[in-house]
Amino acid sequence: MFKEQRVRKFTEKVFLAIGCPKKDAKLAADVLVSADLRGVDSHGVARLAGYVRLFDHGRLNPNPQIRIIHETPSTAVIDGDKGLGLVVAPFSMNIAIKKAKKVGSGWISVQNSNHFGIAGYHALFAPKNDMIGWAMTNAAPLVVPTFSKEKLLGTNPIAVAIPAGKYEPFVADFATTAVAYGKLEILQRKGLPAPHGWVQDANGDITDDSNAVKNGGGLLPLGGDREHGSHKGYGLGAVVDIFSGVLSGANFGPWVPPFATAGFHGVVEEVGKGTGHFLGAMRIDGFRPKEDFKNDMDKWIERFSAAKAVDGQKVWIPGEPEREITAERLKNGIPLIEKVIEDLNVLGERFKIKL
Amino acid sequence: MFKEQRVRKFTEKVFLAIGCPKKDAKLAADVLVSADLRGVDSHGVARLAGYVRLFDHGRLNPNPQIRIIHETPSTAVIDGDKGLGLVVAPFSMNIAIKKAKKVGSGWISVQNSNHFGIAGYHALFAPKNDMIGWAMTNAAPLVVPTFSKEKLLGTNPIAVAIPAGKYEPFVADFATTAVAYGKLEILQRKGLPAPHGWVQDANGDITDDSNAVKNGGGLLPLGGDREHGSHKGYGLGAVVDIFSGVLSGANFGPWVPPFATAGFHGVVEEVGKGTGHFLGAMRIDGFRPKEDFKNDMDKWIERFSAAKAVDGQKVWIPGEPEREITAERLKNGIPLIEKVIEDLNVLGERFKIKL
Repeated sequence: MFKEQRVRKFTEKVFLAIGCPKKDAKLAADVLVSADLRGVDSHGVARLAGYVRLFDHGRLNPNPQIRIIHETPSTAVIDGDKGLGLVVAPFSMNIAIKKAKKVGSGWISVQNSNHFGIAGYHALFAPKNDMIGWAMTNAAPLVVPTFSKEKLLGTNPIAVAIPAGKYEPFVADFATTAVAYGKLEILQRKGLPAPHGWVQDANGDITDDSNAVKNGGGLLPLGGDREHGSHKGYGLGAVVDIFSGVLSGANFGPWVPPFATAGFHGVVEEVGKGTGHFLGAMRIDGFRPKEDFKNDMDKWIERFSAAKAVDGQKVWIPGEPEREITAERLKNGIPLIEKVIEDLNVLGERFKIKL
Repeated sequence: MFKEQRVRKFTEKVFLAIGCPKKDAKLAADVLVSADLRGVDSHGVARLAGYVRLFDHGRLNPNPQIRIIHETPSTAVIDGDKGLGLVVAPFSMNIAIKKAKKVGSGWISVQNSNHFGIAGYHALFAPKNDMIGWAMTNAAPLVVPTFSKEKLLGTNPIAVAIPAGKYEPFVADFATTAVAYGKLEILQRKGLPAPHGWVQDANGDITDDSNAVKNGGGLLPLGGDREHGSHKGYGLGAVVDIFSGVLSGANFGPWVPPFATAGFHGVVEEVGKGTGHFLGAMRIDGFRPKEDFKNDMDKWIERFSAAKAVDGQKVWIPGEPEREITAERLKNGIPLIEKVIEDLNVLGERFKIKL
């Protein structure tokens, strides 16, 4: 178990070591550690070595000049200048919030960025301002559209964060696939098969081979197969891709560049600039008096929490499970697997930082 | 087979007969017939008798004074005055488009409305104006959140329509469930079981009983069960409910009033006004020059259409299958089942209109 502060300080120093300004290093570390605290281990410090590889490959600008390249009162495109998505996305969300303060809502499509961590982190800036927040990003192709043998979409997550009154915000934050790739990696490490409906093989047949995605297969969209609505998951992933990539002038579809993890290299052709994101903020009182809205959100949360559940289970409010894990990990520390500790130690040796 | 014009004229006359103004009757008929033309038979003239029942029960105002009750430059809440959702939603979309013309985007939450037909119809006003369109609505509870025995959400559809250059718009339009309720009704009529992963029984177990929803069970969210991402479908349906109901001051969750079809009555408590919708429009050139965007959308469509498909299948662009059915039905007519023809004939006798 690693105390949150210990992981955070280390992460911050690594970002400083590759040339990030102090403020950016702090923010980027906060995004990664927040993922670990929420139990989204695949998007936490496990990725730190990957961000450094992006830097080593010249794909990451540690000190970017992030700027608005086009705007209206409620919309903008932002150029991330090859910066860390971990920094570009909060910058962009901040612009969305400023626009929402002025005209009710703000919508930002981002080009020329990199992997932005967990979508929910960015969406959650909005509820602090009595707004509803949206965050999406496209990602390198791992997912097969319905009936496709080819991987053309990323796991393309969507997060929506909605403020309540006496309760914590509602946060839906999910990949538009049946399952996150991180869960397959865990099965791969353990040599276990995948549940039916997560992946298909190179031939387009659903398989329980947890290594299928590496061998010509692909992740299935949310829904699994056509009979269970995979065309809906495909449609949703496509919307995220178009809002993030096509609307901003970033890469889209199969051209989204891979995150610098081993095993997913090889794309060279570009149709736009870097990875794309989409962020939005809507002011609650652009619609209703915010106290009325918050009272009704509390009623919504209470009714769903009180639902009769199947034996031994409960009905969760989106965002609630992650908050429970956070409380536990703040107290007991973050569990890091051997492989991640090794990766961090390699970084530590290189940059003379002690974990 | 019924020629589209024949069904359209009849539908228009029925709406006129219950007191809708000429323009509204024409529009409402167009929404319903568009559903039939697209092959969404459950949302077409099969519902006409239901709208008349809403009128008979005093829940539908055929001549509503639809009005904006609160607004900012990019947001508004609209009161549908108990009008047909078929008319209230296009009115609201029109306001969204006007706002987008002025400030880049427009977002409308609607209270005090009724069932609005197919979401895609309303979203598609946007691409005609070089905008991206959104349409969502909440609906009476048929769907169980993950681990719930109680039905707390409607099928809560989402539509997103995106213009392209030389191709027709991309239209994702889907219920946030594994399957639309209409597909279960078809199985019920034929006495056939449901595929595993569509519904659960009163005990919360997944079942192949296509009548389960009527007997204390519920439709499963997109994803099916927790292992296959049902919490994502639940989160998505919840977002639609909150945007449509809580943000507007309409009913939400289990309190959304039933559409007047047999078998789903009984909800009396109200926490807001009528059914809620959410509509949005974003101007393409609020982000990028529209020719650049359209060229990239064409490239997106061409790449996905050209994807290597599993044997005997092809990769569809969202919206494409519905357009193929439309072409076929415009030529050969709309197939109506016996039960629907009977319902229409009853309406015909009552209002002295010949089908």
